Amino acid sequence: MNFENIIDAKSEWLNADGPNSDIVISSRIRLARNIKGYPFPHRGEHNSNIEIMEIILSALKKTGFFKGGFIVKMSDLSDLDKQMLLEKHLISKEHLIGQIGSAVAVSKNHDLSVMVNEEDHLRLQVLKAGFRLDECWNLINSFDSELEKYLDFAFSPNLGYLTSCPTNVGTGMRASVMIHLPGLVLMDLINKVMQAVLKLGLAVRGFYGEGSEILGNLFQVSNQITLGKKEYEIISSITRVLDLVIEHERNSREMLRKTGEEKLKDRIGRAYGILTNAYLISTKETIALLSALRLGMDMEYISGIDKGTINELFILTQPAHLQLKTGQALDPDARDIKRAKLIREKLGTNKINDK
Amino acid sequence: MNFENIIDAKSEWLNADGPNSDIVISSRIRLARNIKGYPFPHRGEHNSNIEIMEIILSALKKTGFFKGGFIVKMSDLSDLDKQMLLEKHLISKEHLIGQIGSAVAVSKNHDLSVMVNEEDHLRLQVLKAGFRLDECWNLINSFDSELEKYLDFAFSPNLGYLTSCPTNVGTGMRASVMIHLPGLVLMDLINKVMQAVLKLGLAVRGFYGEGSEILGNLFQVSNQITLGKKEYEIISSITRVLDLVIEHERNSREMLRKTGEEKLKDRIGRAYGILTNAYLISTKETIALLSALRLGMDMEYISGIDKGTINELFILTQPAHLQLKTGQALDPDARDIKRAKLIREKLGTNKINDK
Repeated sequence: MNFENIIDAKSEWLNADGPNSDIVISSRIRLARNIKGYPFPHRGEHNSNIEIMEIILSALKKTGFFKGGFIVKMSDLSDLDKQMLLEKHLISKEHLIGQIGSAVAVSKNHDLSVMVNEEDHLRLQVLKAGFRLDECWNLINSFDSELEKYLDFAFSPNLGYLTSCPTNVGTGMRASVMIHLPGLVLMDLINKVMQAVLKLGLAVRGFYGEGSEILGNLFQVSNQITLGKKEYEIISSITRVLDLVIEHERNSREMLRKTGEEKLKDRIGRAYGILTNAYLISTKETIALLSALRLGMDMEYISGIDKGTINELFILTQPAHLQLKTGQALDPDARDIKRAKLIREKLGTNKINDK
Repeated sequence: MNFENIIDAKSEWLNADGPNSDIVISSRIRLARNIKGYPFPHRGEHNSNIEIMEIILSALKKTGFFKGGFIVKMSDLSDLDKQMLLEKHLISKEHLIGQIGSAVAVSKNHDLSVMVNEEDHLRLQVLKAGFRLDECWNLINSFDSELEKYLDFAFSPNLGYLTSCPTNVGTGMRASVMIHLPGLVLMDLINKVMQAVLKLGLAVRGFYGEGSEILGNLFQVSNQITLGKKEYEIISSITRVLDLVIEHERNSREMLRKTGEEKLKDRIGRAYGILTNAYLISTKETIALLSALRLGMDMEYISGIDKGTINELFILTQPAHLQLKTGQALDPDARDIKRAKLIREKLGTNKINDK
């Protein structure tokens, strides 16, 4: 795959399989790494950033992990391309702005990606469908080991991996899980549960990571602490907490089914009815309605739609995807029309006679 | 038909045929009549009101116009029954409260009805689908003539028919038309047009007559003046004005098609999507969405649904109809569930798996 094809490529993590995939959308692990003897990206000079990028890109190629995927410099991408990578959860908001010498590498299935010269020289990421941090760890760990054959990482025997921001020092690892919690939201229990999650030392964020809004009842839960613990300890403590959250969500859904089923069916039914028949729809409304539809499928009120299609729609309906797909810049009104059209097409026929 | 069957009987005026039925829902003429030598109902004593009712009911039977329909005393009806007759537009809100000696007669097709001892001794009404005041007049006039064989109406050679309220003196006639004006509302031209209608001496009311709210873009336009004009003059002046309103509405719809089609399709599509998939819906939302759906059908964006079904739903989804149909009193929440179920059934299958 070259970069041109990425817009149409479906990321593997959108397949909606994997353990607990009725509640957990995806699992993600990222590692922060830096090259010994070079300043961190934001402190580096023009030439040293370029130099380090070339060293890293050459190493990435050698690993063989990006065959069928792509490795590309951020300076070679348009603003829409960059935005599209953000929408696919392959790069961060910070990487959009783009340091000198920034680049990105993405594997064939989009499960593995690397940001070059974001906050650190390297940010490795593995993203998989469902609740499987262990598998994420196995892949990222083997990739990290392979990479160490070609790169000399900044490492302190006392502290562990050195990182640009002290909150990442140690393992340099952030493990996070994207969970869909409409049951807890509808039962008005979400704040209680999230407060407990925070107290247990985890962070909670929105659909697009740090500082982003909670949309579509989607929450990202991740570890705060990277230092003084082994990777497997971090992963197992996050897993324990998430197991509890999943149980609470499952209970809430059953409570809703028992005590407010008409309200639940109304919410799900209206979401389906609007998504399949609207001709103008905003990103925010789309995400909220897709969340309700996803709940309807997970609770088996709705059948005959592929869950992967719903997951894909969360991404394909974002502004940059819509514009790249259309091949032109679109103002928000025009995007609302295209978005509604795409959703109707993906979900099946609507009622209006299109002349 | 006896009274028990009326809940299921479809009034002929709901058939959605007739001239200009894409805009005019129904035409209605009513005549106010009083019996010579008796006080008006609200000034009548108990016995005289009862006496006059018996005289009138006996005359109504003799006419033969109510074969297959029913003649019933209001005191024999439950509150829900009365409410249902109001919802069917067969009696007025005032008649709900019910003077001593009040009664109602309805013809087989519901096109002809009489309220006994409402504001006047007799209020005759003819109601037909589409824009056909002439036909309404022909029917009510022949019925009125027939009735005069058995009853002696209070009539002054100078003033005409005498009525309880001076605004009805003369012809005693009110001609009205229920028009659906979503185009003018969406184009924000409705106030301008309605102001012109008022200036031309007509009155504008909502879905349930005097003092009722404008719901679902449905307007009742009627004559104000009953004195000093012949009936055919009143009818032809109302017809001239309505022809203009219809033309404006038609132009507005074409403007919407040309300049804001996506918005229009969005409104119609969402209405269809919600109506066919909701599990809880209020009367007000129902009327608003049925209005949009009706527009969609009249503008040929939606096909495969019978317009009569939509007209019928305006009536069947009202509170008393729902409760009589279910056979029990229902609180508003329970009605919202029944209403949604009825609509889904009438409009075809929905997406939710009902277990």
